[in-house]
Formats: sequence, C-alpha cells, structure tokens
Amino acid sequence: MSDASRLTLNPPSRILLGPGPSNIHPRVQMAMLAPVVGHLDPYFVSVMEDTVALLRRTFRTQNKLTFPVSGTGSAGMEAAFDNFLEPGDTAIIGVSGLFGERMAENALRSGAKVVQVKAEWGNIIAPEAIETVLKAEKKVKLVAVVHAETSTGALQPLQEISRLAKQYGALFLVDTVTSLAGHEVAVDEWGIDICYSGTQKCISCPPGLAPFTANDQALAALASRKNKVNSWYLDLSLLSGYWSESRFYHHTAPISMVYALHEALALIDEEGMGARVARHKRHGAALHAGLEAMGLKLHAQAGHRLNVLTTVQIPAGVDDARLRKRLLTEYNIEIGGGLGPLKGKIWRIGLMGHSSTAENVLLVLSRLEKLLSEEGFKAKAGDGVAAALKVLNG
Amino acid sequence: MSDASRLTLNPPSRILLGPGPSNIHPRVQMAMLAPVVGHLDPYFVSVMEDTVALLRRTFRTQNKLTFPVSGTGSAGMEAAFDNFLEPGDTAIIGVSGLFGERMAENALRSGAKVVQVKAEWGNIIAPEAIETVLKAEKKVKLVAVVHAETSTGALQPLQEISRLAKQYGALFLVDTVTSLAGHEVAVDEWGIDICYSGTQKCISCPPGLAPFTANDQALAALASRKNKVNSWYLDLSLLSGYWSESRFYHHTAPISMVYALHEALALIDEEGMGARVARHKRHGAALHAGLEAMGLKLHAQAGHRLNVLTTVQIPAGVDDARLRKRLLTEYNIEIGGGLGPLKGKIWRIGLMGHSSTAENVLLVLSRLEKLLSEEGFKAKAGDGVAAALKVLNG
Repeated sequence: MSDASRLTLNPPSRILLGPGPSNIHPRVQMAMLAPVVGHLDPYFVSVMEDTVALLRRTFRTQNKLTFPVSGTGSAGMEAAFDNFLEPGDTAIIGVSGLFGERMAENALRSGAKVVQVKAEWGNIIAPEAIETVLKAEKKVKLVAVVHAETSTGALQPLQEISRLAKQYGALFLVDTVTSLAGHEVAVDEWGIDICYSGTQKCISCPPGLAPFTANDQALAALASRKNKVNSWYLDLSLLSGYWSESRFYHHTAPISMVYALHEALALIDEEGMGARVARHKRHGAALHAGLEAMGLKLHAQAGHRLNVLTTVQIPAGVDDARLRKRLLTEYNIEIGGGLGPLKGKIWRIGLMGHSSTAENVLLVLSRLEKLLSEEGFKAKAGDGVAAALKVLNG
Repeated sequence: MSDASRLTLNPPSRILLGPGPSNIHPRVQMAMLAPVVGHLDPYFVSVMEDTVALLRRTFRTQNKLTFPVSGTGSAGMEAAFDNFLEPGDTAIIGVSGLFGERMAENALRSGAKVVQVKAEWGNIIAPEAIETVLKAEKKVKLVAVVHAETSTGALQPLQEISRLAKQYGALFLVDTVTSLAGHEVAVDEWGIDICYSGTQKCISCPPGLAPFTANDQALAALASRKNKVNSWYLDLSLLSGYWSESRFYHHTAPISMVYALHEALALIDEEGMGARVARHKRHGAALHAGLEAMGLKLHAQAGHRLNVLTTVQIPAGVDDARLRKRLLTEYNIEIGGGLGPLKGKIWRIGLMGHSSTAENVLLVLSRLEKLLSEEGFKAKAGDGVAAALKVLNG
C-alpha cells in the first residue's frame, strides 16, 4: 500500500472531447461549494422543486414524475427497466451498439422476455423491423431504444417507433443519456413514456445523477405490477414519495450533486434549448467537415450522425492507443476509443455541452492533423481546419 | 411552474447536528473544485488507487474488493443484499430500528427467505436470539446487523454475533453507515465478511457514495451464485472489474464525489483513527451528561449508546416539530426527529465527523435549554452546559 494520504488532489486541466464527462462551466463547479444542508431542510426542498421544474423544461415534459435518480446514467437505465418490467412481460429492445446491449441485459435481469431488434453498430434501427416483432409477439409491454448511441455516434429517429409502440399498446422507453441538452428531445410531443439521461454529457455537470421522467401511462403500468420492484434503492413508487410534496424520507439525496445539476440546468435555460441545439449542430457539422477534408472517414450512417459525438475511422497503420495517449499527454485533450467490436477501429470525439465550442473544433482538428502526419498518415495539413472554419463562418 | 432559473443557490450555513449529513471540512469542499477528468484518465486511476488504499485503512481491512459504490449508503445496502443473497438462501436480519427493517426489505427483494430477530427500538439484538435461529434453520447464508442504528441511537456489539455466524457457516454482514470513522470499526479483526457505509455521516463528505468492502469468503459465495445478480448497476463482479487493475469500463464514476471522498479520508488519516474515535467519544459523553443534567432522558439502552448520534426523549408538553423548526430558523441548527414508532417521541442529535466539536456540544445544549424553557419545560437553566463542560475539561 502506498502512503495514500500523501497524494494531494491536483488533476490536470483536460480538454474533455471524449464520450463524457464533458468540461464543466465554472458556475457549476462553484455550485458544489454551496454549504451542504439537510436533505429535508426547507431550503433544500426549494432547490429540489426548482431542479424538477428545470428538468421538465429540459425534457420538454409536463410529467409529474420527473427527478434526478441518485446514481449515474446507468442507474437511470436500471431504474427504467427494473420498474417497468417484471417476469411475464415482453420487451423489444433496439440494439445497434453497446448501450442497446446494456438495455437488453438490464431488461433480462428484470425477468422479462427480451426480443432484440438488431442493426449494425453505427446504423439506426429500422422501424419496420420493430413492427415485425410487435406483430409476432402476443403482447409487448415496452419498446426501448437508445436515442444517441454513445458507442457508435448514430442518432436514432424516434417518432415512427413511438407511433408503432402506441399502435400496439406498448410503452415507449428512450435512453437520452448522450442526446439530452445537445440534440432536440421532446418527451411529450414525441410520445416518450419513460426517459432517462445522465448529467456528464451535454448537461455538463459532473457524473453522479440520472435525470428521469415517466408519464401517467407508465405510472399506471407501475401501479399494476404483480411483483415488487427488484430494487429498493431505485423503486420509483418510493422515490416519488421523496420527490413529491410529501417529501417522505427515502434516502439521503446527494445534496452537492443536486446543487451542481440545478446550476447546469439554469445555464441551459439561460442559453435557451433552441440556441443550444443549434450550437451543437454547428460545431458537429464543422468537425465532420474538417475530419472528412483531412481524408478521414466518418463511421456512423450518413444522415444519422450525432452532432455531439463524432465517430471516425482510425486510418490504417495508425496505432489507436498511442495516438490517444499522445493527444492526452502532449496536448491535454481526451478523445474516446472504440468499444466492443469497434475497439481499435474508431475514435469518438465529443463536443458536448460546455465542451462544444468553435475553439475546441479547431483545436482538436489541428492537433489531430499534426499527430496523424507524425504517425505516418498523410493528411493534407491545414485542410481540416480550413474546412471547419468554412462551416463555422457560415 | 415557478420561473425556476431565477433561484440563485444561496443555502444557509446550517450547523448540522442531525442524523446526517454532517458539516463538511473546507478542504473536502475545495476538493470538489478540482477539474473533472475522464473516468479512465491515468490521473483519475491514481486517485482511485489512493481512495481505495485510504478506504482500507478506514475499514481496517486488507480486502481486495474495497471501493465506493456510486450511490448513497442505501445503494451500499442494496449492493450487499442483492449480491450475496438469491432465491433459496436464508438470511437472519437483526431488526431493532428503521435501518434493520430496511435490511430485511432489501433481503426480501433478493428472493431469499428472511428471518428477523427483533428487539425494541433503542435496544441491541441479543446474540442468543440469533443463535436460536441459527440452530433452527438448516443452512443460513448470512447474518446481518446494523452497527449503529441511526433511527434509535444504539450501538450493536458485533464480535459475539460474528463468532456465531462463523460457527454456523454463515457470512457476517454489517451496516456501518453511521459508525464508520466515528466509532471503532475493525472489519478484519472482527470477522466482518461484508460491510458498507455512507459518506455523509462520520466521514463528513457530501452524500453520494457508499464505501464497500467484502472479503474472500464473501467473494467465493458470490462466485457460486446460481442466478445473475438482480442489479446490473450494483453487480459486484462487474464493478470490481472497474475498481481493479484491469479498469474495465462499467459506468462513469462520480468523479467529483470521489475527489471529495479522497480528501475526507485523507483528513481522517491525518487525524488518526484512534484520536478521531476518542474525539467522538468525548463529545458524545459531554452531550449525554448535559442532556441528563437538564433533566432529559436518553432513549437508547444504557451501555450501548452511540457517541456520534444521541437520542433523547421529547419532554411531555413540548411540540416536536415546533421546537426543531425554532432551532433551525432562529439558530441555524439542524437536529433530527424520530422515525417510525419513535416519531414525535425522540430527537436525534448528531455529533459526526467535522460536526463533532466541543463548541457544537455547548451550543446545542445552550440553545436547547433556552428554547425548552420558553416552550414550558422546566430545565434548570445552565445545568446542561455546566455538566458538559465538566466532561469536556476531563
């Protein structure tokens, strides 16, 4: 054992352009310095109320059950499947990446029958493929898809699948961990019944909470469960008691994280969601243009690429880990590697929330161009930045 | 919906003398300002390693599987029961308060058979009562008790129950949410196989993480499970992959909370656990003496009272909620009310971690004396403070 107490916290100031966490606005960091009060303190109750009101705006929902689950985005996923599935249920899960696979794994652990509708990692799920299963299965409890697949960089269109779920009497569950506050998300308008997200992507808050919302149809399904929810910690019937007017004690809320989330959501509200989504779109388009101008190939299906996380194929002959390590150690820039079957094949470059700036687009393109040319890939130096500038200058 | 974005975070500076959260040392708050880095960043890996080393010292264990679960203390409880119980198992749970009841509820949701060994709320569980069940049941998978029952203020002796669990081949599981870093806890020496805690009590870190440890016997039991763990988020086989040398990605760790925990554990290490436990003992004893000198009655069983959380009976004729509200609004002091059958009958006064100071002992006694006399209870003014001072001055 090292003399652990001798390590003084002194993290490097990374430019976080990976799949999350993203960089944090100074106001969000300052919020964590606010004095901790009790979890039932009248002051904290006012912060909870405001946080919930801001979350509703962010999700574009009027759902009464809207609050942050006390865990990371993965805890939001687990809360969704654990509460709305039980033995005897059938779930259809769209799987075209790691987080689709995780949803299927979560759904299985609830004891439900799980039918996976698959697509290539990087492509979207075809609504027709989901309809085929909806027709074939007697009764489907829910249909679940990932809006922004963090492992592939693809953006799943939602409205046609939502319509199908409704037509066949199934709940529609959507993972918006990577899309919320970066791409358009409209929970009520799009007929999403259950939705969860994470804080460390486009919301630009430290990881630790999972924004969650569910509508009345979903709550009716919850009320008619035959078995108790597996999880006590994530049991929505109990959690909603604390996050409602009754404030019935369930567990101690992560006070400082709720402060941080409140401030991050206030920043989103001040920018305006329309402007924020446009910002992510502009910077994503600039990055795409720059990477393609350098002669690199984007991985995700054309027409369905995320603006907040770009996947790009690693050129032949370039060492994945070595290049990412050089970016990190020489330039303090974090980008992500591929996961599962895409490990060693793609990089994932995030432009999320506070990290989505014109400066970061130009920076990552210029550093990549330099390092790639040193690593033997013949990028036409300067082309990437020039192409990005053209988009940025409109 | 209020215009939520207009609320600026500006919490009152409470003196937190309730059942948690406790006040935070300024260094712990500052740690949360450290820049967020990626959850697989080499720097964060060094922080994880140090945090785990410090946690081992705090738990007094050599257990390889030692890390903070990404949720509050309740998530630690759930991780314990969800991983080490499954259908077909039998668990003995000591229940003499709300958190014992919760353990039983958590154990039930794992599908196991649960036998509760009960005692009055405020008393400890008799080892003989546990042995009776150990004899009666064919095969018991685990025996679980709460070390410091936050709802009653009683401290459960552990060593005899540990010996019995071993004698009958059962795992010994202990909740140290309220005791760790305030009372003596010696995981290895006392033969505790599975142990979890929370950060917002005697560790004096904001809520949001659950320190957790399990030894090799527990891991062997985990490896021989017949069914998958209900929870994916809290599946220890998966979590230990991330918190071991392989650093296999599971979920994004709550970076800023881990920074805070690291700093809080470093402070504990600097103080020294012996000195820290003695500090809690001294201040707890002074508070007990002061309250009794005022003519109040302590609730928990004599000889088994917590030093970190004192339960005291509310005198007849005094309005519970009104007095606590006056303490909070007039003097910024939070103390806790009773839970369950003790609601309206006791107060819970915490002296945990950074909140456990001589100043706070004298402060809460003097404020209580004043308010109680105003509310019609004839405390002999000044007696409480005098009695406490006598203990504090040795």
